[in-house]
Amino acid sequence: MKVLAFLLATSPSLYNFPTKGPHFLAPRISVSANFLGSQFVRPVLKPVELSVFAMATCVHTSRTETPPQTKPHKTQVDDCLFQNFVKYCRPNSADIVSCAPISEKRSNTLHMCAPTGLDDVNINHEEAVDNLWKLMKDEARSDIDEEPILSNYYFSSILLHDSMESALANHLAMKLSNSMLPSGTLYDLFIGLLTENQDIMRGVKDDLRAVKERDPACISYVHCFLNFKGYLACQAHRVAHKLWLRGRKILALLIQNRVSEVFAVDIHPGAKIGRGILLDHATGVVIGETAVIGDNVSILHNVTLGGTGKVSGDRHPKIGDGVLIGAGTCVLGNVRIEDGAKIGAGSVVLKQVPARTTAVGNPAKLIGGKENPTKLDKLPSLTMDHTSHISEWSDWVI
Amino acid sequence: MKVLAFLLATSPSLYNFPTKGPHFLAPRISVSANFLGSQFVRPVLKPVELSVFAMATCVHTSRTETPPQTKPHKTQVDDCLFQNFVKYCRPNSADIVSCAPISEKRSNTLHMCAPTGLDDVNINHEEAVDNLWKLMKDEARSDIDEEPILSNYYFSSILLHDSMESALANHLAMKLSNSMLPSGTLYDLFIGLLTENQDIMRGVKDDLRAVKERDPACISYVHCFLNFKGYLACQAHRVAHKLWLRGRKILALLIQNRVSEVFAVDIHPGAKIGRGILLDHATGVVIGETAVIGDNVSILHNVTLGGTGKVSGDRHPKIGDGVLIGAGTCVLGNVRIEDGAKIGAGSVVLKQVPARTTAVGNPAKLIGGKENPTKLDKLPSLTMDHTSHISEWSDWVI
Amino acid sequence: MKVLAFLLATSPSLYNFPTKGPHFLAPRISVSANFLGSQFVRPVLKPVELSVFAMATCVHTSRTETPPQTKPHKTQVDDCLFQNFVKYCRPNSADIVSCAPISEKRSNTLHMCAPTGLDDVNINHEEAVDNLWKLMKDEARSDIDEEPILSNYYFSSILLHDSMESALANHLAMKLSNSMLPSGTLYDLFIGLLTENQDIMRGVKDDLRAVKERDPACISYVHCFLNFKGYLACQAHRVAHKLWLRGRKILALLIQNRVSEVFAVDIHPGAKIGRGILLDHATGVVIGETAVIGDNVSILHNVTLGGTGKVSGDRHPKIGDGVLIGAGTCVLGNVRIEDGAKIGAGSVVLKQVPARTTAVGNPAKLIGGKENPTKLDKLPSLTMDHTSHISEWSDWVI
Repeated sequence: MKVLAFLLATSPSLYNFPTKGPHFLAPRISVSANFLGSQFVRPVLKPVELSVFAMATCVHTSRTETPPQTKPHKTQVDDCLFQNFVKYCRPNSADIVSCAPISEKRSNTLHMCAPTGLDDVNINHEEAVDNLWKLMKDEARSDIDEEPILSNYYFSSILLHDSMESALANHLAMKLSNSMLPSGTLYDLFIGLLTENQDIMRGVKDDLRAVKERDPACISYVHCFLNFKGYLACQAHRVAHKLWLRGRKILALLIQNRVSEVFAVDIHPGAKIGRGILLDHATGVVIGETAVIGDNVSILHNVTLGGTGKVSGDRHPKIGDGVLIGAGTCVLGNVRIEDGAKIGAGSVVLKQVPARTTAVGNPAKLIGGKENPTKLDKLPSLTMDHTSHISEWSDWVI
Repeated sequence: MKVLAFLLATSPSLYNFPTKGPHFLAPRISVSANFLGSQFVRPVLKPVELSVFAMATCVHTSRTETPPQTKPHKTQVDDCLFQNFVKYCRPNSADIVSCAPISEKRSNTLHMCAPTGLDDVNINHEEAVDNLWKLMKDEARSDIDEEPILSNYYFSSILLHDSMESALANHLAMKLSNSMLPSGTLYDLFIGLLTENQDIMRGVKDDLRAVKERDPACISYVHCFLNFKGYLACQAHRVAHKLWLRGRKILALLIQNRVSEVFAVDIHPGAKIGRGILLDHATGVVIGETAVIGDNVSILHNVTLGGTGKVSGDRHPKIGDGVLIGAGTCVLGNVRIEDGAKIGAGSVVLKQVPARTTAVGNPAKLIGGKENPTKLDKLPSLTMDHTSHISEWSDWVI
Repeated sequence: MKVLAFLLATSPSLYNFPTKGPHFLAPRISVSANFLGSQFVRPVLKPVELSVFAMATCVHTSRTETPPQTKPHKTQVDDCLFQNFVKYCRPNSADIVSCAPISEKRSNTLHMCAPTGLDDVNINHEEAVDNLWKLMKDEARSDIDEEPILSNYYFSSILLHDSMESALANHLAMKLSNSMLPSGTLYDLFIGLLTENQDIMRGVKDDLRAVKERDPACISYVHCFLNFKGYLACQAHRVAHKLWLRGRKILALLIQNRVSEVFAVDIHPGAKIGRGILLDHATGVVIGETAVIGDNVSILHNVTLGGTGKVSGDRHPKIGDGVLIGAGTCVLGNVRIEDGAKIGAGSVVLKQVPARTTAVGNPAKLIGGKENPTKLDKLPSLTMDHTSHISEWSDWVI
């Protein structure tokens, strides 16, 4: 508290901490105090050293597509994506970071189709998170230059923190707290879990990249980190899932329900969710207890991965890697949506969807027919192409 | 206020009341003060006396189903459910409480198929609420033992209150208040209405049981009471509906709109809703002014019971007893969904659905065909079986 | 601050300002101070002078429909609505205000079918806003008479403000602020933009009238202004859009995301939205960056105007004037929904919908068939008739 009081006295214009009211909580501040010295007193405008690789990758990764008619690497991509189990690599040179293998077991085969990314053995995970965090701080400073009235917001949310773990714990705690559930309690809980569990932080980071790469409306990492409720709901789930696995069900469910209130995203803490996830817009997403979601999946708003009503047991969908699920879709029951499949908006899916196929409609049918469905040659979760194959399905004036 | 100040001074670790800020409101505290003496000073770990019946029922009611192939009481159930107007009894011995007649007029015939429950003449309603409330306090203490960091949360939400009425008034007030609409004002309003209107409290209690019995994700009554936004939205509606009936439209509509903001559930205060209601997940539910919902109905998220656009008059759906409506379904216009019917997820329903039938699709059709629709032999709202009969409807690879 | 302290000391019963906690923010108060003198000290019960025209129009505009069998002006309406590009006028004498031309370019032809309204050259826009604001203050006083416990709420939200701009800036700021983003910062931002940009205020006012006229659940202008999250989300979007056009993307996106959290309505600040908009219930509405929405459009909850996944460029729907889009509908891609079209609830639309036609289903088809679709003779966004033409579509028991 003294550190903070001093801080407030000496630099009131930089960060006006709310010193009264239920949102001001001693535990959070005492934790924060340990980085105030190193982070805050030094001028924050010093250029941040980034690895050249991270810099080049993260700054310039915007989604660019080769025109469909050229498709120079089509066959190669096809092989790469689906036959050699080397998934999620796009041979687009600007996007090589996203080609990084999500799980280490895949890194052997990855070199067949793309250079390795940040997760490669050459650069360890902690360094990668660190580089991303430094980049986000730079983005924050640039945003403050552009909008000085947001200085306090960016200082308290980003610049006061010396790690992504601390900033995320604080941001989630501020969002999920209320007058009955103080942010300090939540911060302490979150910072502990995030610091101890670097697997969560990998998800935190890969999701950040996924949003930045796939959502044209995302202008920077810090923009996603601060604002995207789908992103924040997913990270809160990662924490809740860890608590669930440790048997702390009461806390896990409490987080689930606060997330449902605050973000309108209802993910049971038992659900297993991979990395590189985009929950776009996110309102109304419901994911059940025994659902499993692979890596690099994109899910739009109002998507339900629901149960069948059976009392218990494995009753929710299993979503493979690289799947795209359009807005307003219900997938019900323990059915498998296989790798690289696409589900059109507004569909109702009650059966298995084979890999690389497109299912649309209510009830959903496969584009190209049940016997010989059309196969996708790109990962739908990465292209976020919601409509191209669907034209075949609704080939009339409307 | 003195009582509270004393309390804070002597037991700060038990309950750190926020003493500053807009959430701290004198009216709420002054009301609370009258139960602080009796409730708080005494050790809270004393075993709570419950009627043997309530204990046995409430603690162990988990949904267990007899395997479909055996169905020993099928015919009997059928009769019981639909022919003798004795509804919502399940002959499963573990679930007899849920078999209690919702309205007293049914208690004469109920004995034909199941033992009586808590609402029976032998145990009056107030006692039943009381027993449930004691059980919930026990659950709260057990939760605190498991998660001491939630002590304050459980104390202020549950253990400080000497009645379910007080706890519910406080919890809803805390959720629905904001800096313009103080929780004290809302608490005073809610506690008055809940105490005076035991018919609301019957709904409060029956909904609590409905959630606990039908939602496998609900681990305890106190878990539902504190966390489930569908449950809380429904109880807030019960209060708003009472205000609406008394002509206090401004207040009723204000509550509706706060509930829509906080829980994303928009129920017009004019809507008539029965008891034993489960609003599962609840995000996006919209229920119009002249809608009527029977007893023991289960409604998933994103369900609309909407109007036809006519300026006024009776223009919204009428939902019978025991109906199940799947996620994302729109029922539009003054159409009747008869007792025990099931509407599949993602359906659009514009016509009457006969009793015990299943309607699915956009536009919805009856399973089995219009002339001879397949009849359900179980209450869909209780089994929460969303998909079994739908297999007939989408019988292809997908 | 002194003004306020004095105010609190002398009239505590009228308005108990929260003086502590994160919600109390000096900037907002200092701005408010300049109208405290004129507004607050004078007795607020003095009758407000309204122009006879505004009074007659606004007070009595409730939706009344001529019985369908009579339709005395059918042909005339038809011409008026669609052929002479004089849209949105209803020849119902009680509703002439809603017939006012939204854009000035239309005022020449408007006289062909209806008297001019508030926006006419005879009464300038500022006066019209002023009259509406005075009427809203009267409504607020009447509400306080009916519900004295809401006095503080109405004083701080409505009666303390000397203009609709100030009240709206304050109300949005209070709703969208949180402990990290103070309401004072937001108020200053909003009041500046609203005062400078009377085009926004035209939208603010026209939307208010649209809700009041089309939504039977709306009982007064002040009721809509204070409570309707669809209305508030739309006005916040108007502010965010102005920021977006000025290149202040960071702020614009921040507002978008706060609105998505608080109201569950996600409108990209780049979207162009006309005037006279009703977002009914509003939960789950998603509108993409390059979407364009015309005037007098009614959109129900859970409607998506989404992209096709292309990285950038014009990729979202274009909604014409007078369109009605039912609940849960997805319109995807850069497709045109032409003037006066109606989209049924739960539809998935991927192609152009011609003017005055009705599209329903998943995928959507035209009522009457692709070659000769049935033409609507009334503006669906005004009648809010969701179901009458759909009966043809689902002509079976269900």
